[in-house]
Amino acid sequence: MGERKDCVVGVDLGGTKISCGVMDSSGKIVLSKTIQSSSQEQRLMLQALVGLIDEMLKSSRDAFFNPRAVGIGAAGFILQPEGVVLESPNIRWKNVELKKILGDATGLPVFVDNDANAAALGEKFAGICKGVDNFVYLTLGTGIGGGICIGGKIYRGHKGTAAEIGHMVVDPEGPTCGCGRKGCLEALASGTALEREAARAARKYPDSILNHMCSNDLEGITGENVAEAAEAGDKAALEVFSYVSHYLGIGIVSLIHIFDPELVVLGGGIARSGGLILDGLRKVVEERGIPSCIEGTQIVLSSLGTSAGMIGAAVLAGEGIALWE
Amino acid sequence: MGERKDCVVGVDLGGTKISCGVMDSSGKIVLSKTIQSSSQEQRLMLQALVGLIDEMLKSSRDAFFNPRAVGIGAAGFILQPEGVVLESPNIRWKNVELKKILGDATGLPVFVDNDANAAALGEKFAGICKGVDNFVYLTLGTGIGGGICIGGKIYRGHKGTAAEIGHMVVDPEGPTCGCGRKGCLEALASGTALEREAARAARKYPDSILNHMCSNDLEGITGENVAEAAEAGDKAALEVFSYVSHYLGIGIVSLIHIFDPELVVLGGGIARSGGLILDGLRKVVEERGIPSCIEGTQIVLSSLGTSAGMIGAAVLAGEGIALWE
Repeated sequence: MGERKDCVVGVDLGGTKISCGVMDSSGKIVLSKTIQSSSQEQRLMLQALVGLIDEMLKSSRDAFFNPRAVGIGAAGFILQPEGVVLESPNIRWKNVELKKILGDATGLPVFVDNDANAAALGEKFAGICKGVDNFVYLTLGTGIGGGICIGGKIYRGHKGTAAEIGHMVVDPEGPTCGCGRKGCLEALASGTALEREAARAARKYPDSILNHMCSNDLEGITGENVAEAAEAGDKAALEVFSYVSHYLGIGIVSLIHIFDPELVVLGGGIARSGGLILDGLRKVVEERGIPSCIEGTQIVLSSLGTSAGMIGAAVLAGEGIALWE
Repeated sequence: MGERKDCVVGVDLGGTKISCGVMDSSGKIVLSKTIQSSSQEQRLMLQALVGLIDEMLKSSRDAFFNPRAVGIGAAGFILQPEGVVLESPNIRWKNVELKKILGDATGLPVFVDNDANAAALGEKFAGICKGVDNFVYLTLGTGIGGGICIGGKIYRGHKGTAAEIGHMVVDPEGPTCGCGRKGCLEALASGTALEREAARAARKYPDSILNHMCSNDLEGITGENVAEAAEAGDKAALEVFSYVSHYLGIGIVSLIHIFDPELVVLGGGIARSGGLILDGLRKVVEERGIPSCIEGTQIVLSSLGTSAGMIGAAVLAGEGIALWE
């Protein structure tokens, strides 16, 4: 029996599921598990979260690892360095002292960040942003999260809430967002917006594949339904993707004008339908971007997909305890 | 006769005027001169620019200074580190090798930056941003320029064109911008937008002070006219400031959500009417900003006013030759 090897635990805490992974000191995920959040009630979610982390810590010890720290990326506005989730538009959390709670529960150093910041860090460590110092990452899921990397470091702002790209105002008179305000990018181009527009398009085109797929339950249309119909060439579904690409393109034009990044990276659930979105949004960026400014910036899909957040959270923990130094 | 003292020259090259200053090694401006650009024709402007710099170099030598470098902030998109003005929406320049041209003309090291980046650097060195590491600076003039300071350094992006905050899309169906695209912040909240809206308001309210001031030449209304009428309580003029504040507020909400900065600073010509704009835009930010995100960010007026660009350009030159190290 050899010496126990150091590892860190990374957790991606989203609106609908919690993923937890164990990363060894070579940066490889050696164990992982994802559970669905059965409830969005704060106490029950925290219970499920602590339970999952406990289980993974035990599994890692059983596999002769020595877990040294926990990193967590949480969907919400995080106050730094306190690691408090101030609020979260898509989980019903308010002022949750996550760093303290998980520190008490595990007895380990805990590092908390916004879930999209964590995902951006994951892409930088092991994904498409490896070696890229200036990039903007968008995670397209229930909401739209953002991560900004400047000079090789994740930018968190002066108190921790930077990179809320989903709440950039794209159309001042646009639809109401999960945050309660009007015309945020998230209200126009997230998974939630895609489903809302899909219900509208299915009603507008009663003969569409989209309508036939879902006519008994228009409110239950999923992104997968829309993607499937669009791939079959359905007019209604294509119109929905065109809507989302249009607003996403406008948001990305602003981000390129502001950041002049090497890469704009799209991750999260919708990004799986990347082909249906990328062409349309690149066209919008060509049309609306200033040539001198958009020149040289590439728009690409994330390479780690939905694992980026978990990987990045583990990297956050590893960096926090200087595991790689 | 003592030893010659080191100095640097800073130039602010705007759409309508060129300001040139000589800064001593204590950071004080000891000489300065501003000329109007009589022409926007590239060759003539360059001639006037080189002439003014020559004159200031001569004056500084006459005053027993030893000019060591030239810094210039130019209105336009700058390619770095080449110091080429790629294009400029408000001056008719295209691919001007400014660093090379001024280096050849003066025989000194030349440092080129965007004019708003230079102004942000000026405010950081000697103005309201002294000691502030994370801030966003907007210059409200003919156009809207932006400067972003992150971790104490001006952020220029991966090729040099970052911080084009004026070309953030604020209303996708809004008026056409100087850059040829629709609904940029600059098209809604710059001095040019203010004057356009003032002409509209003067027509709408024939009995307004604004109309009486300018009824013979509605297209010639200036920002000063609108400010004067607004200060007299004129409904038309107040409506114009309310329009500008509204869109500026929306743009600033997005910037706060993206950057979580300590300060948002308003400089440039319009900022002189600060009182007329600040209250309105702060209200928009309160209404449209996410409380957890806007908390702690202050919106303030620049303290160096229109000198910020010239001072910052001199600082750029001083930093370039490590004058203060």
